[in-house]
Amino acid sequence: MARRSVLVTGMSGLIGGALRRHLEGTYALSALNRRPLPGVKCHQADIADLEAIAPAFDGVDTVVHLAARTGESESFDEILRANVIGTYNVFEAARRAGVGRVIFASSGATVSAWERDAPWSALIAGRYGEAGPFAKMTHETPTRPAGLYGASKIWGEALARHYADTHGLSAICVRIGRVKAEDRPMATRDYAVWCSQRDIVRMIELCITAPPTLRFDVFFAVSDNRWGYRDLEHARAVLGFEPRDRAEDHR
Amino acid sequence: MARRSVLVTGMSGLIGGALRRHLEGTYALSALNRRPLPGVKCHQADIADLEAIAPAFDGVDTVVHLAARTGESESFDEILRANVIGTYNVFEAARRAGVGRVIFASSGATVSAWERDAPWSALIAGRYGEAGPFAKMTHETPTRPAGLYGASKIWGEALARHYADTHGLSAICVRIGRVKAEDRPMATRDYAVWCSQRDIVRMIELCITAPPTLRFDVFFAVSDNRWGYRDLEHARAVLGFEPRDRAEDHR
Repeated sequence: MARRSVLVTGMSGLIGGALRRHLEGTYALSALNRRPLPGVKCHQADIADLEAIAPAFDGVDTVVHLAARTGESESFDEILRANVIGTYNVFEAARRAGVGRVIFASSGATVSAWERDAPWSALIAGRYGEAGPFAKMTHETPTRPAGLYGASKIWGEALARHYADTHGLSAICVRIGRVKAEDRPMATRDYAVWCSQRDIVRMIELCITAPPTLRFDVFFAVSDNRWGYRDLEHARAVLGFEPRDRAEDHR
Repeated sequence: MARRSVLVTGMSGLIGGALRRHLEGTYALSALNRRPLPGVKCHQADIADLEAIAPAFDGVDTVVHLAARTGESESFDEILRANVIGTYNVFEAARRAGVGRVIFASSGATVSAWERDAPWSALIAGRYGEAGPFAKMTHETPTRPAGLYGASKIWGEALARHYADTHGLSAICVRIGRVKAEDRPMATRDYAVWCSQRDIVRMIELCITAPPTLRFDVFFAVSDNRWGYRDLEHARAVLGFEPRDRAEDHR
């Protein structure tokens, strides 16, 4: 049986690199990337150019769309090109090529402006006694974007829903927490929102292998952090996601 | 006392025209419009051009942002320019000019793809017996966009929240139902989602006059339709909105 063909955008990034190491050997991997990527089939193009990226989608079963300007950028032009137009282009190219599923790297930044308010404000500042008991935020909690970056990820989730509804594409949104090059929490806030590299790549693989009957969904992806406020039960129930790491083990 | 200065984008549209007639005489009205508008102070510019629209915002207290490509357009380039970039430009120009409040004409299209599922599917098809009793959808129900247009309005709401959180702007989103030139329901679905012209202009005026302590909120705006599924209690509680019309009176 032919191996499943998986196209990864943004493979040169931190999560993209970890994902490549995790998936290599199991899937027929390819990359859509601005920079060249030695050792993997790579289509080099700018994600803001629909016609230029289209050939990368031929014969692909599943797309993992990681390419994005990150939360550090507050340049609207950059966010617009890479995240707003780029994510539209990925869904549209996937539809035209008959791709079965797009896994969209969304972000906790779709909701993390709630951290302005109690009890989240106390939690992310490490004032755990003050935070008191709290219910976790779910994927159905109203969004509240952190910056233009968060708004662009809300846009991407809306596109995912639209393409799933209208074009029969399976679209899964993963709201990724804080993944670090050092692969451990580095700041107080990370004890709430950290996601280890092995937890995120495992989550993405579960999205790749989930049955085709899964047409649309939204999941948080963080490690099993004691002071985490983002629900993991939904990902556990639907995907069988069992995070292996906990931020507090790295104190 | 000087009259409140209200800038309306898209005043040449159906709702813009009705709003102009309703507000004239009470407020110092001005327009930001592509086409000339006789009889009102009008700054002519393309909303996709931030520098070109900026002068329209000088000295403005409140912006009512109606300009948009409507739900009939499925051209991404049009939606991108008018709704995605245009709405960013309006919030950004408002921030730079120190405008106090932006009222954003959002749309029921932020949630109306729920009409694909029961009981909404039966309701909008006029199979009222089949729909059975149902709870109304609230402004906190997860979004589900109808088309790229709906996705662009979800983006606009995310921007509204971001500007309210980060820049101290008061931002109010009004999810407008189906407003018709004939000012009455014309299709079966309209019995659920119709909004009369006098109900929408009254709603917008309530958003203009709401106290400055209202920093961010989202309201549905439809008439008091018997088969409506969009909650009006929140607008009643916060704004005192009392719709005067009902779609079923026009059967």
